[in-house]
Amino acid sequence: MKRALEKFFEPRSVTVVGASATPGKGGNDIIRNLLSNEYRGRLYPVNPRGGEILGIPVFKSISDLPEASDLAVLVLPASATLQALKECTEKGIQAAVLVAGGFAEVDNQGEELQGEMAKLARETGVRLLGPNTSGLLSMPRNLAASFFPLGKIPRGNISYIAQTGNFATHTMRYIMSAEHYGVARVVGLGNKVDVDESEVLEYVGSDPETRAVLLYLESFKRPRRFLEVAREVTRRKPVLLLKGGSTERGAQAAVTHTAAMAADDRLVGAALRQAGVVRMSKYTHLVLAAKALALAPLPKGRTVGILAPSGAMAVCMTDLCERELNLTVPDLQEKTQIRLQAVSPPFIRMRNPVDIWPSATIHGAEKAYREAMHAVLMDGRVDALVCILMMTDETGAPPLDFILDLARRFPEKPIYVSCSGQKKHMEAAKAFLEPGGVPTFWFAEEAFEALHFAVQCRQAMERKGRQENEG
Amino acid sequence: MKRALEKFFEPRSVTVVGASATPGKGGNDIIRNLLSNEYRGRLYPVNPRGGEILGIPVFKSISDLPEASDLAVLVLPASATLQALKECTEKGIQAAVLVAGGFAEVDNQGEELQGEMAKLARETGVRLLGPNTSGLLSMPRNLAASFFPLGKIPRGNISYIAQTGNFATHTMRYIMSAEHYGVARVVGLGNKVDVDESEVLEYVGSDPETRAVLLYLESFKRPRRFLEVAREVTRRKPVLLLKGGSTERGAQAAVTHTAAMAADDRLVGAALRQAGVVRMSKYTHLVLAAKALALAPLPKGRTVGILAPSGAMAVCMTDLCERELNLTVPDLQEKTQIRLQAVSPPFIRMRNPVDIWPSATIHGAEKAYREAMHAVLMDGRVDALVCILMMTDETGAPPLDFILDLARRFPEKPIYVSCSGQKKHMEAAKAFLEPGGVPTFWFAEEAFEALHFAVQCRQAMERKGRQENEG
Repeated sequence: MKRALEKFFEPRSVTVVGASATPGKGGNDIIRNLLSNEYRGRLYPVNPRGGEILGIPVFKSISDLPEASDLAVLVLPASATLQALKECTEKGIQAAVLVAGGFAEVDNQGEELQGEMAKLARETGVRLLGPNTSGLLSMPRNLAASFFPLGKIPRGNISYIAQTGNFATHTMRYIMSAEHYGVARVVGLGNKVDVDESEVLEYVGSDPETRAVLLYLESFKRPRRFLEVAREVTRRKPVLLLKGGSTERGAQAAVTHTAAMAADDRLVGAALRQAGVVRMSKYTHLVLAAKALALAPLPKGRTVGILAPSGAMAVCMTDLCERELNLTVPDLQEKTQIRLQAVSPPFIRMRNPVDIWPSATIHGAEKAYREAMHAVLMDGRVDALVCILMMTDETGAPPLDFILDLARRFPEKPIYVSCSGQKKHMEAAKAFLEPGGVPTFWFAEEAFEALHFAVQCRQAMERKGRQENEG
Repeated sequence: MKRALEKFFEPRSVTVVGASATPGKGGNDIIRNLLSNEYRGRLYPVNPRGGEILGIPVFKSISDLPEASDLAVLVLPASATLQALKECTEKGIQAAVLVAGGFAEVDNQGEELQGEMAKLARETGVRLLGPNTSGLLSMPRNLAASFFPLGKIPRGNISYIAQTGNFATHTMRYIMSAEHYGVARVVGLGNKVDVDESEVLEYVGSDPETRAVLLYLESFKRPRRFLEVAREVTRRKPVLLLKGGSTERGAQAAVTHTAAMAADDRLVGAALRQAGVVRMSKYTHLVLAAKALALAPLPKGRTVGILAPSGAMAVCMTDLCERELNLTVPDLQEKTQIRLQAVSPPFIRMRNPVDIWPSATIHGAEKAYREAMHAVLMDGRVDALVCILMMTDETGAPPLDFILDLARRFPEKPIYVSCSGQKKHMEAAKAFLEPGGVPTFWFAEEAFEALHFAVQCRQAMERKGRQENEG
């Protein structure tokens, strides 16, 4: 039986083979990342030159190490990786991350080399992540094992399993600099010579640190096993998948990228859905859906209350919900209508979607929004609320304490916020609301798209529950 | 015959009835907008109290005015609007903007009142915009006649015709604060008691200041006329339309908003397409497509070269193009392949989509992007280029002069840019590139969506040209 993945995610010691004293080199950045995220295990840089790297003593060879570390990260060219890996296994190291590219994704020679590593893994039982991976992050362990300069990564409840290195490189930098959610485990699968998506999904599926799992895959290494695992995990937490290579031309590009032979998209689609996996279609959803799931509760159903500062936005968002996103914009209860009346101008009967403008001109934006949001959240027919704030110097600006207050008072109803108006206020609202647990979206459509995924996650979990009760 | 719309867009004098000295009131903000945009015509505020508003002498009544101004803007409650309008016509004023809401969109009484205004227009020939409009902007004339605080509006080549006031209110504030394009004419149609979308489209269609027209409509007042006008205008410039109320529930909301009875969407769809009108489906497209059309040339065809800092992004964007956006990601010419080889790592053959990462690790981001962008732009098979930059402190940052240089050297091929990495660099790239004529998009998908519309605009114009040659 294969050893499980604890040594990747909870290593008490890490060896970095190919560690470098030269700033700007991957072998230097990985040490920097480990230090700046305050990895608390034992750290062993290996470089034939010895000396020190960022204050850490360097070992000249793997055989010199004082122990078999739990994990080794090999930041070496493809040509040197196999030999170093052999030395690791001789030392007794049981888990290794292989950063080098230049294997099966490039040519036959690379494929052959990759085959030899697979053989070594089978023979020695060493577990391999990669090759052709940017590395992995395991923030509950303060472990940031990526060769890309990252800085301090925010710890959170989202885990990424990706057949791309982006989530341990530039996309993580985007998330860190522009969003307010953090990550638990991030795995760049690379060429999947050994560790694959099914196994990592199984791990993060039972990981208490992970609330939701987002996958980017270009191929399934063991499709049947993946479905088995997914069926199990989706009973407990959301699993969302973007499958790259869903078109012929995209699949061609995927071969160059990760040597993936794309499975026929239509064949896997239905099985994935049955397994409770929520499909996404855009790269950006990997960030926007993650944010929504990280910060807000899942809605109980697919009805949404909409507040907008304009009739046109209200109309367009309703169209979007009903036409594309399988969200309903329900009529409000009679008692909600009455509550809304208190902040309505005379003669205007506010409905869902709520055009808040007339009310705001009379009562001021804050009161109009606060009272209307409260009324809609009280409504039993409404499972979630998307509120588009109007933010200008003259019509009001953050802090929007009342929204955080409403989020606390309605913990079962997600509130998503978008804005229309001046950029600086939109940014201030984001900076204020997201750390308080209310996700915001630059463009209103993004809020509804994210909600669409959250609804599907909930529905998948409920279907699972029902199947169990019936079974 | 009805008088044309020159008096709305090119008025040599403007009367504001309901002008106010009280900051925060619509009647004050409109004067402020006219002044801060340096309207150079004669300005006549009217208020029974007289005095001065922001240094401009106030007239106590319409009859006191020294002349019949070209345009009157009535910032009055619904109840007072009809009487003031009568006084305007008695004075000889021939064009009026009616700001008040509370007409047909509210109740029967409002509908009746609206009917009386329509009658007055028929009898006197006065042209009416509204009621229930935020106003209009005509930046070639420095005219910003909106009751919403706006500040200095950037003049540009985009015209909006909207059955919503948003483009003379908060959405304009968004554009002004977050984007780098300007507007020529912006019309909030309101309830369309007289002036309608067909007539305004005709006006901006022959307006040399307008490069592209974006419409938001919830209904067509004269569908046949609209199609006639559109057929003519789309021969010369792009006309893009978002139709609100395309679902039953959205249409219900539209009734509350502008009293629009939504036409059956499927009936009009085919006719609009034949007339060369490009349909949009999201509110946000009204901004993103406008930006692309304002800043960059139209592509000659639907092939796109893609540069991405990651294989996954390259794959996903290719999928998006081919699956949803009717864009093709073509194979590159042999000579382009050879050019790309100069910045490729050994053993890697760069293809379209171009994963620039391996090249950037060897040659540095700037050289890799510059050479690869140049090679792809040289390729006769490529009509447009979307480039996703990787922007972090360590891997490179603006200024990106070479991109502006390439845009100048390839004036027939649009270059759209998106970024992945740190927010501050993405913002700096936007601030640098957009004023230089290269549109940027926060998320990469947005660039391709905008390109999709630009391609459709070009195709519509070409279809028109072909029809003429054949006819």
